[in-house]
Amino acid sequence: MQTKRWTMAFSPLDSGLTGPLFTTAAMRDVFEDRAYVAAMLQVEAALAQAEAEHGLAPAGLAEAIRSIDPGSLDIAQLGQGTALAGVAVVPFVKAMQGRLPPALESAFHRGATTQDIADTALVLQLRAALDLIADDLAAVMDGLARLAAAHRDTPCAGRTYGQHAAPVTFGFKAAVWLVGLADLADALPGLRERALVASLGGPVGTLAGLGSAGPAVLEAYAGTLGLAAPPLAWHTRRAGMAEAGAWLARLAGALGKMAGDVAFLCSTEVGEVSEPHVPGRGGSSAMPHKRNPVSSTVILAAAQAALGPASALTAAMVAAQERSAGAWHAEWHAIPTLCGLVAGALAEARCLAEGLVVHPARMQVVLDMTGGLLFADQAAAILAPRCGRAAAHALVEAAAGMVRDRGGTLLDALADRPDLPAGVDRAVLAAAFDPTPAVAAAATFVDRALVSAGRSRSSLS
Amino acid sequence: MQTKRWTMAFSPLDSGLTGPLFTTAAMRDVFEDRAYVAAMLQVEAALAQAEAEHGLAPAGLAEAIRSIDPGSLDIAQLGQGTALAGVAVVPFVKAMQGRLPPALESAFHRGATTQDIADTALVLQLRAALDLIADDLAAVMDGLARLAAAHRDTPCAGRTYGQHAAPVTFGFKAAVWLVGLADLADALPGLRERALVASLGGPVGTLAGLGSAGPAVLEAYAGTLGLAAPPLAWHTRRAGMAEAGAWLARLAGALGKMAGDVAFLCSTEVGEVSEPHVPGRGGSSAMPHKRNPVSSTVILAAAQAALGPASALTAAMVAAQERSAGAWHAEWHAIPTLCGLVAGALAEARCLAEGLVVHPARMQVVLDMTGGLLFADQAAAILAPRCGRAAAHALVEAAAGMVRDRGGTLLDALADRPDLPAGVDRAVLAAAFDPTPAVAAAATFVDRALVSAGRSRSSLS
Amino acid sequence: MQTKRWTMAFSPLDSGLTGPLFTTAAMRDVFEDRAYVAAMLQVEAALAQAEAEHGLAPAGLAEAIRSIDPGSLDIAQLGQGTALAGVAVVPFVKAMQGRLPPALESAFHRGATTQDIADTALVLQLRAALDLIADDLAAVMDGLARLAAAHRDTPCAGRTYGQHAAPVTFGFKAAVWLVGLADLADALPGLRERALVASLGGPVGTLAGLGSAGPAVLEAYAGTLGLAAPPLAWHTRRAGMAEAGAWLARLAGALGKMAGDVAFLCSTEVGEVSEPHVPGRGGSSAMPHKRNPVSSTVILAAAQAALGPASALTAAMVAAQERSAGAWHAEWHAIPTLCGLVAGALAEARCLAEGLVVHPARMQVVLDMTGGLLFADQAAAILAPRCGRAAAHALVEAAAGMVRDRGGTLLDALADRPDLPAGVDRAVLAAAFDPTPAVAAAATFVDRALVSAGRSRSSLS
Amino acid sequence: MQTKRWTMAFSPLDSGLTGPLFTTAAMRDVFEDRAYVAAMLQVEAALAQAEAEHGLAPAGLAEAIRSIDPGSLDIAQLGQGTALAGVAVVPFVKAMQGRLPPALESAFHRGATTQDIADTALVLQLRAALDLIADDLAAVMDGLARLAAAHRDTPCAGRTYGQHAAPVTFGFKAAVWLVGLADLADALPGLRERALVASLGGPVGTLAGLGSAGPAVLEAYAGTLGLAAPPLAWHTRRAGMAEAGAWLARLAGALGKMAGDVAFLCSTEVGEVSEPHVPGRGGSSAMPHKRNPVSSTVILAAAQAALGPASALTAAMVAAQERSAGAWHAEWHAIPTLCGLVAGALAEARCLAEGLVVHPARMQVVLDMTGGLLFADQAAAILAPRCGRAAAHALVEAAAGMVRDRGGTLLDALADRPDLPAGVDRAVLAAAFDPTPAVAAAATFVDRALVSAGRSRSSLS
Repeated sequence: MQTKRWTMAFSPLDSGLTGPLFTTAAMRDVFEDRAYVAAMLQVEAALAQAEAEHGLAPAGLAEAIRSIDPGSLDIAQLGQGTALAGVAVVPFVKAMQGRLPPALESAFHRGATTQDIADTALVLQLRAALDLIADDLAAVMDGLARLAAAHRDTPCAGRTYGQHAAPVTFGFKAAVWLVGLADLADALPGLRERALVASLGGPVGTLAGLGSAGPAVLEAYAGTLGLAAPPLAWHTRRAGMAEAGAWLARLAGALGKMAGDVAFLCSTEVGEVSEPHVPGRGGSSAMPHKRNPVSSTVILAAAQAALGPASALTAAMVAAQERSAGAWHAEWHAIPTLCGLVAGALAEARCLAEGLVVHPARMQVVLDMTGGLLFADQAAAILAPRCGRAAAHALVEAAAGMVRDRGGTLLDALADRPDLPAGVDRAVLAAAFDPTPAVAAAATFVDRALVSAGRSRSSLS
Repeated sequence: MQTKRWTMAFSPLDSGLTGPLFTTAAMRDVFEDRAYVAAMLQVEAALAQAEAEHGLAPAGLAEAIRSIDPGSLDIAQLGQGTALAGVAVVPFVKAMQGRLPPALESAFHRGATTQDIADTALVLQLRAALDLIADDLAAVMDGLARLAAAHRDTPCAGRTYGQHAAPVTFGFKAAVWLVGLADLADALPGLRERALVASLGGPVGTLAGLGSAGPAVLEAYAGTLGLAAPPLAWHTRRAGMAEAGAWLARLAGALGKMAGDVAFLCSTEVGEVSEPHVPGRGGSSAMPHKRNPVSSTVILAAAQAALGPASALTAAMVAAQERSAGAWHAEWHAIPTLCGLVAGALAEARCLAEGLVVHPARMQVVLDMTGGLLFADQAAAILAPRCGRAAAHALVEAAAGMVRDRGGTLLDALADRPDLPAGVDRAVLAAAFDPTPAVAAAATFVDRALVSAGRSRSSLS
Repeated sequence: MQTKRWTMAFSPLDSGLTGPLFTTAAMRDVFEDRAYVAAMLQVEAALAQAEAEHGLAPAGLAEAIRSIDPGSLDIAQLGQGTALAGVAVVPFVKAMQGRLPPALESAFHRGATTQDIADTALVLQLRAALDLIADDLAAVMDGLARLAAAHRDTPCAGRTYGQHAAPVTFGFKAAVWLVGLADLADALPGLRERALVASLGGPVGTLAGLGSAGPAVLEAYAGTLGLAAPPLAWHTRRAGMAEAGAWLARLAGALGKMAGDVAFLCSTEVGEVSEPHVPGRGGSSAMPHKRNPVSSTVILAAAQAALGPASALTAAMVAAQERSAGAWHAEWHAIPTLCGLVAGALAEARCLAEGLVVHPARMQVVLDMTGGLLFADQAAAILAPRCGRAAAHALVEAAAGMVRDRGGTLLDALADRPDLPAGVDRAVLAAAFDPTPAVAAAATFVDRALVSAGRSRSSLS
Repeated sequence: MQTKRWTMAFSPLDSGLTGPLFTTAAMRDVFEDRAYVAAMLQVEAALAQAEAEHGLAPAGLAEAIRSIDPGSLDIAQLGQGTALAGVAVVPFVKAMQGRLPPALESAFHRGATTQDIADTALVLQLRAALDLIADDLAAVMDGLARLAAAHRDTPCAGRTYGQHAAPVTFGFKAAVWLVGLADLADALPGLRERALVASLGGPVGTLAGLGSAGPAVLEAYAGTLGLAAPPLAWHTRRAGMAEAGAWLARLAGALGKMAGDVAFLCSTEVGEVSEPHVPGRGGSSAMPHKRNPVSSTVILAAAQAALGPASALTAAMVAAQERSAGAWHAEWHAIPTLCGLVAGALAEARCLAEGLVVHPARMQVVLDMTGGLLFADQAAAILAPRCGRAAAHALVEAAAGMVRDRGGTLLDALADRPDLPAGVDRAVLAAAFDPTPAVAAAATFVDRALVSAGRSRSSLS
């Protein structure tokens, strides 16, 4: 049966126009309505199977449930029922009861409550989403590891507060992005442990309808689904969902750090990198020369848009009594959106990690732009043992001011100063302006980062 | 041409399963993809017309644009183009150029940039959404005004910190909800003035492509669309969008105040009101006796879910230079979602305002529950002139403690006290326990609120 | 009496170390504890005066309250009382009762509740804060108006998505910042009207303790304080506070837009502006050459930090019954912080608006950086009438790609193309690369913006 | 030297009036300015020691730094320096250089940058804060474990959507709160591992100033401080801070769940528990009988107020290049505030966990309030095998409606129905109304929860 399908756009993730820009087809498959119905069927089947093992349901019920085609349920009709009941599980259960033979129907959904089915179905979707995310995260990390290794020794300006600070290498920048993602990879196993938990509590969380078999059915049910069994119902204990949301938002944030850097580095004046060029990508309706950094844009938007849903999940922890009026429903707006945003951001990040175009020659031009100011801290470090750290700082600060105001190089400006400490001359100072130590220092940390991130990467597969 | 349609569920507003619960069909019509395409066509036609008036476009262009059926554009194909370009306007413009005769094509979209079209189209949607919202807000206010008037004198416990405090009337409660909505109605005209503004700036906001005619075309374009013309482009000046988001979230908050009160008042122990009963509404999959307050639930969820998108719009104000990479795209996740949430919340609020079942007899039972503690402040007020305010407070506090611990009434407990000030006896004290003055005081403010809210109501139509 | 004073640092606004960086001494004076005590005294005096006018309090009470030195109250002792009672007003009232002669004491605080005093005191602080903010906002706008006028015709690259787009003038950029602030100035009168409202409702909002004189006392009390009188109590009707918070966050956002632009424009590679140099400003502990953009940094931090408190105020609108357990207290963390953040941001913005160092010569160098790509849309506009808009776009896009890949100028690349439409040669194309029209277009909007912002400016004083 | 101390109130945590209500003295000690100065001294000493081990600093430097009394630094003067430099470390370093003998001064702060010192000092504060929090969390968990055990079998109404649903025990409710906190305890070790990391990267993160000794000094420095050493600098890799903020907000949320339940349960109409009574606690300025639930109020306010700072930390992950202008400074507003809020919430939660007054007799009265509707699901479960689940649900639903409308008991209403399935009579039905199985089911999960939470508890000490 073909149900009516809408083209929606309350969320740009769901829009036919903007959905392909903002998220992936694979993640869409996880969260579309029919997948949710399929997940509910899977949950009810697991419950029936667990109950059958304990003599609480007929043997054939699980099989009967599994034989139902999710596509055969009428989404629009379920939607009308949801508007009435407040939860999709209620019309879903009614629809199922209409399909099961009387001998099986009386045991269907036994001892469970709507929230058990809805939450466990969501957890199954979340598990699938985290699998997709872990795969894409691994791919992005692999790409960044190659990028960091390839440019381990490519000199590049380091910038703090938007100002040239001291030299790094481009590989070091990529290593920072890589370890930024490794930080999230490190937290994923713990998150999975705490968030991928089956829900089964019955009306008020005590599974009273299953008599003394409650805990055993809970364990069997969770085991069938490959989920952890909770100590007790989590109907109003929502730390797992909130942690998932916070992790997803942090992942978007770590990707956003890379995207923000890329967007800056490919700005016209800097021009040190370009986003991989795909014909037509980043074009403008007005300006034929434009190649806008679309990947960075999508990622930065995701990082910003993820904050609200993550916060809503934490707010929803203040759930009332045995089930909330409002807090739980507010959650529904959050997890799928976060997964959609992160999937889109990862897809674009993968484009960047695997295809970023690096311009080492331009990096060198940029490094030479300031007449050696990038080495001011090194110059001060040479002077400090001779005149004290504060005096060295002041002396270089004065010379740097001259360079800024009148041009020339910092080496010249320093060498010309009458107040140099005894024993310091141009030759002594010149050592400060050798980029080799800065590059070596950066490369050392690239190596260290690759080892560390490699360990983190292994937690993803 | 029939484009492929998805059943989406990243957002529960877009889901076939939960959409009917969370929002309205009318608001869905405003924001579905085809409506956005129609809005873009309307905007381009207005631009063509304005340019024609100033000799910058051929006379027939506007008409040619208006004759295009939005439904004839292939949403899926536009979506693929959007994924490449980063903005739906780019493939839209290309698709349009393929349809216009060469003589008209060269002037299409002249001087404009993608953001002009996208933002103005969104403003047209926002205007339509605000019209729907204003209508529903007016209906909710009308319902609450009737409720406040009908129960102007119905005694009811006033509660602070969840504790019985002093008597009010149920009409007074409804009046608080009513004025809470009137506060938002008061802010709507200013919001419309500041947010319903046309966007036309060209690539960098200066409309340079239109030569000296820029400002005149801008005025004509805005006029055609019935929007205000801005002093200059608002590509990176986003206070209007942020104000719209904040107002929508506040409206959800004002509705949430009512919903939270209703949910509490219809809790089993209180039972002073019931949500209007619709067969099947608020049922449970497990508990046949349940009538859950679904309207309150939907509204409370909306109030919570609205916070994030509103905050994202304020964050997006930090837009870079002449156009942002990220901040603008983050906005797209916010305005439609907020309108969808508010529409759903208003629809449920209207159910409550027009159909709330009030139980005055139960209110009286509840008022009598505490043996007169609700009149403690009145009792202290009688004593204060005789023994000082602090002493009166202490004396009543002690008597109240006895009532709490041992039962009985506060009047008895007070009358029995040996430390009553001279001239105070049971008869004097009894006056404190007459509910008439409390009811009269509440009723006075109901009247005052109805007048005030009536004025605010008039700004909605 | 000298109470013990702490050096605190839960909030960096309150820290002795970082407070001077993040906020102003004037705003500190508005929100320090003693000022709050003084505001509570002012409110109680206004209440006493209003009640005396209606025969509900002795004539001398207001005067007696006004004669109390706020500095004479022991903050630490009040703090201990607050920890017990949950609200500072309770120990404050007790402390006051201990000081008033018995004849006055019995009428002190008559008919009021703690929230009346606390909220009205906060509104008085908010009024003082908004006055400071309006003054500083006016000064920033004046500075930006001068900046916009001074650089009305100074050519500067316009940038979208971080890429050079088309030329503007620096005055146009300043005008965008100016109108961004004007947007907030426009919303201030309405905000003041809706947020600067006296609170007086008594225990449950009905002012029952004042008998039939309630509304009249409310009007007199509000009038004495120079505040609006509400239709009825706003104990749980918090749109005004939420609107104030949203406005403050938007103001921080509008300032953040300017700060983000300035930070980018003074990055080493761009170098088009410098923050005003104050000796020692923006120095580094390690890098003697650094002049970090501290003003931009403080403003951007404020814009980010303001989002949370503003959102909390909207969340707090879902207040329970006649007084909330939690929501109201959550508000206390928001309004003062927002005012402190905005005051600091405005102070730094004033430094920028009044002292920003503009480098027109550098702007010209930057404009010349891309071999004329900035004029691509103009070139396409010249071609469009000859070959159609889509073809013109494609032709210029191809030429721009060659410039990007091989260097040279867009004019050369275009002139060399064999596929130019008939009648187009180098001379025809050259017109596209004349910056005069772009500058004129920008200047036109600067003038328009100055007129419009001047009108908005007038609402501030 | 005695510096001037302020009484601040931008944050109510810092206010002398409200600070004692909202946070603890112990947490105040961790975050007051002088403690921050002491932490910076500790960090510089560790750096000096690590560098001495590698021949990069004189042996006596660390000792000289440790001998400086943090109280001897002039906070106000440092504050003025911070306002100039933008970071407190800059004037701090200058002040230190003025105190060290020339032979030591030149090696002070060698190779480091301001952010190394500031971030590591903050991490030391965070470690101390987490230790306090872990202790208090353990105490709250201990209290709740005792409460759950004590009321393992105390029958109590279970409520969903605010409606009576089915019986639980009060111990089950306490167990839900307990496991809610155990969820956070489980995540603490991972958080500590990822967030309690030393920062040392030098100006751009490469530690170039230390030559090839960089990584070794980093390890030694971290080891001295008892912190983990990062793979590379986390100047712009902020997942650890964001995770800390998210965890703190979730902890506030888990406490808020308990507080919300307590506030509801001690509402006048429910009255099943009371907050522990302390004389004067929860009093009102107007209503002598009030005992407001102040502990719940403070906790709920903390849960709400924590959302914004946590979100700001995630937003700050989008840090620019090697150091941000803005994002880092925005963080400063978040971590101390979150720790202050959580400390206050835990202190109040401990009051509740250790002193909550439970009223089992009232719970029984409440259970009896609805004539057996609480057993509706059990009744349906008895009928289902005889007539099918859907039919059983409908039958009980109809009977429940009669009870709701006309009073009486559900057992009577059911027994009177003509449409009972064959073989079902009053005696059969009566089994559904026996509370024993419900209590046993709840008790089973209490036991299970106590075991599970006991394991989690062990991770705290």
